[in-house]
Amino acid sequence: MGARPTRSAKIRTVRRGRPGAARADRVAVEEPLEIRVEGKGVAVVMRTPGHDDDLVSGFLLTEGVVRDPGDIFEITHCRSSDDRSREGNVIDVLLRKPEGVKFDALTRHVFSATSCGLCGKASIEAVHMAFKPLRSRFRVSPRLLHTLPEALAKSQAAFRETGGLHAAALFDADGNLLSAREDVGRHNAVDKLLGHALRSGWLPLDRHILFVSGRTSFEIVQKALAARVPVVAGISAPSSLAVEFARANKQALAGFVRGDRFNIYAGASRFAAR
Amino acid sequence: MGARPTRSAKIRTVRRGRPGAARADRVAVEEPLEIRVEGKGVAVVMRTPGHDDDLVSGFLLTEGVVRDPGDIFEITHCRSSDDRSREGNVIDVLLRKPEGVKFDALTRHVFSATSCGLCGKASIEAVHMAFKPLRSRFRVSPRLLHTLPEALAKSQAAFRETGGLHAAALFDADGNLLSAREDVGRHNAVDKLLGHALRSGWLPLDRHILFVSGRTSFEIVQKALAARVPVVAGISAPSSLAVEFARANKQALAGFVRGDRFNIYAGASRFAAR
Repeated sequence: MGARPTRSAKIRTVRRGRPGAARADRVAVEEPLEIRVEGKGVAVVMRTPGHDDDLVSGFLLTEGVVRDPGDIFEITHCRSSDDRSREGNVIDVLLRKPEGVKFDALTRHVFSATSCGLCGKASIEAVHMAFKPLRSRFRVSPRLLHTLPEALAKSQAAFRETGGLHAAALFDADGNLLSAREDVGRHNAVDKLLGHALRSGWLPLDRHILFVSGRTSFEIVQKALAARVPVVAGISAPSSLAVEFARANKQALAGFVRGDRFNIYAGASRFAAR
Repeated sequence: MGARPTRSAKIRTVRRGRPGAARADRVAVEEPLEIRVEGKGVAVVMRTPGHDDDLVSGFLLTEGVVRDPGDIFEITHCRSSDDRSREGNVIDVLLRKPEGVKFDALTRHVFSATSCGLCGKASIEAVHMAFKPLRSRFRVSPRLLHTLPEALAKSQAAFRETGGLHAAALFDADGNLLSAREDVGRHNAVDKLLGHALRSGWLPLDRHILFVSGRTSFEIVQKALAARVPVVAGISAPSSLAVEFARANKQALAGFVRGDRFNIYAGASRFAAR
């Protein structure tokens, strides 16, 4: 696998409602890494490949498992025989004194890898949940997206107060803000918003736009799919996996939605004058 | 418990190396929420209190557990008899059809709550790991902090390329950048950096500064403590729990480190001309 932190993606930049020609841009790479200790899966983290040895060493240090470099006996990338795309995304750490490890405490950020047969298979695949691709043909005017940042900013009371919160907002097909939620965690803001929509009886959100205040990770696009949201947009950059996931599931994904511009990373056909 | 998204914190603003008088500011509240389904702990999320019912509903929707509002029978905040500070931070969801829940799959972001006796006790307390408070008297010149953003920016190749990566950098007492790491995940960037320091034999980092490109959450300050870092600084805002944790453990915490200004949220005595 390549450990380059960025990857090429074909995008279109929209200016004042007009999409430009397709061109190559760079996106930050996001891929799952399954961390194993003594062969047992203890965590899957969504990370940028590269410096994986440092990442697991730091993870084990900050989880209180190791203290000295000598506590780590060996770090090996696990090779998968059946799928090259997964290669390099499973790492196993052997410890000098494995008998002292409290595996219960270690699984703090975890994803329990109980059904882990082939190298990394069950665990990493479990990251991709089984939501079906969209079938709706919902389209939105590109001009409408230019109005979202201001509408969100108006609703973001706590952010203005602290500068410390992520926000997520749900818009209808006419650009009306239906609801917005804030949280220190970007995923929580989206969960709060979609939970509110669920409890309000608004699902499926198949004629709606999810707009987030920051970057767009794989998990945010996946959460949108769970609620059947066809258009996801963010003020900052999407990750490589967010782009790939959106394309695979027929979602539109827009990034750097600022002023009279934004970039289309997936689902360009959903941005069309209605 | 109050569900206000922000909280007052006493800070000092430093301008061109000179700390001003203490004054009240607002920080975003970060607290752990233990999510239980049918009484079983399935996840602990670090969240901003408020709209907790929406948060767990959205969590269960996006984890594929519920689809319709009617799938949720009841959501209750669990009351703790022994500790009022934990009140409101444990929530239990009863489902209409609990027999269909795949608890294995649900524990994706989890923290296994195996030893959960009292209401929320074991699980939420496990978030706070047992690293001892610092005892070092390390101090740093406030002027030195003004130099960190530019030094970090110079080293951030992939961010410049994509705008999509978090960065973390380690500086010595003279303001020399020792190492920097980037990742789509802010915690990963810190783990990579501290893992590199561990493997390089630099620990304990008790005369060092950890500088991050974004916001400072509880987990980042806790990771710094694991490596014994006395000064943590970020370009953006810290959370309430980051501030409280830093104070409890004698760490200095600086935020909004930009241009010739920054705010001191904890450990003001560590910022002094040497």
